[in-house]
Amino acid sequence: MVVGSAVETLSSEQAWELLSTRQLGRIATSVGDQPEIFPINFYAADGKIVFRSAAGAKLAEIAVNNRLAFEADETDDDGGWSVIAKGHARILVSVRDIEAADQLPLRSWVPTLKYDYVEITVDEISARRFTFGPEPDRYGNQ
Amino acid sequence: MVVGSAVETLSSEQAWELLSTRQLGRIATSVGDQPEIFPINFYAADGKIVFRSAAGAKLAEIAVNNRLAFEADETDDDGGWSVIAKGHARILVSVRDIEAADQLPLRSWVPTLKYDYVEITVDEISARRFTFGPEPDRYGNQ
Repeated sequence: MVVGSAVETLSSEQAWELLSTRQLGRIATSVGDQPEIFPINFYAADGKIVFRSAAGAKLAEIAVNNRLAFEADETDDDGGWSVIAKGHARILVSVRDIEAADQLPLRSWVPTLKYDYVEITVDEISARRFTFGPEPDRYGNQ
Repeated sequence: MVVGSAVETLSSEQAWELLSTRQLGRIATSVGDQPEIFPINFYAADGKIVFRSAAGAKLAEIAVNNRLAFEADETDDDGGWSVIAKGHARILVSVRDIEAADQLPLRSWVPTLKYDYVEITVDEISARRFTFGPEPDRYGNQ
């Protein structure tokens, strides 16, 4: 019984296209072998993922270790997709970068007057589309 | 202008209750300062989060560093919630544990005959409910 066909690996072009349909993602950070995960609203294009962050845990983590993993997905009862990216983050500091980021359709989960923009330069991206099908029988009774 | 009221910190009881309404979450792992993030289907109850994993990157990461972060969320146009947990993972090996896990309503993203159950013992859990409201004006023009 072939069951692997329920998962399809997508191209990086398809990965970026899927990201353009979503605003909600998550980043994973790591400091001292302790992983952390944070939900973000993001904008993805041109090899970069941009999000806003108020001062706090996310920015502190990134200041110590700027290596990030990112994930976004969408599912319904039949299946869905997931995109995973890895890259390096930097906090935007130049007026030009910040003014450009101000034009992006980004919103923060926490309304705040004080925030920074974080830009992830993506080094690796992968995407899978999958269909929830009948389970294979673990004990071999086909 | 008070804007912080759009975010509400929930109790750990509420966090577990929200987790019982979702199947899709993500775990973050970390090995050698490189964070990774993986989507999972999970079952959460009694201070534990259980998921299935085929042999591969997730299990390899957990074998090296069993500290995990976990996240699940739900959003619509008006707002949503996010639950974040941190804990330690172990792969279930006893027949009794595996038989108990076989009874859980868990499915894998990738249909496979060979998989392990991973159980996260949660040390910390937090949850926030938020409402997307009008943006505060960053430049103070109220």
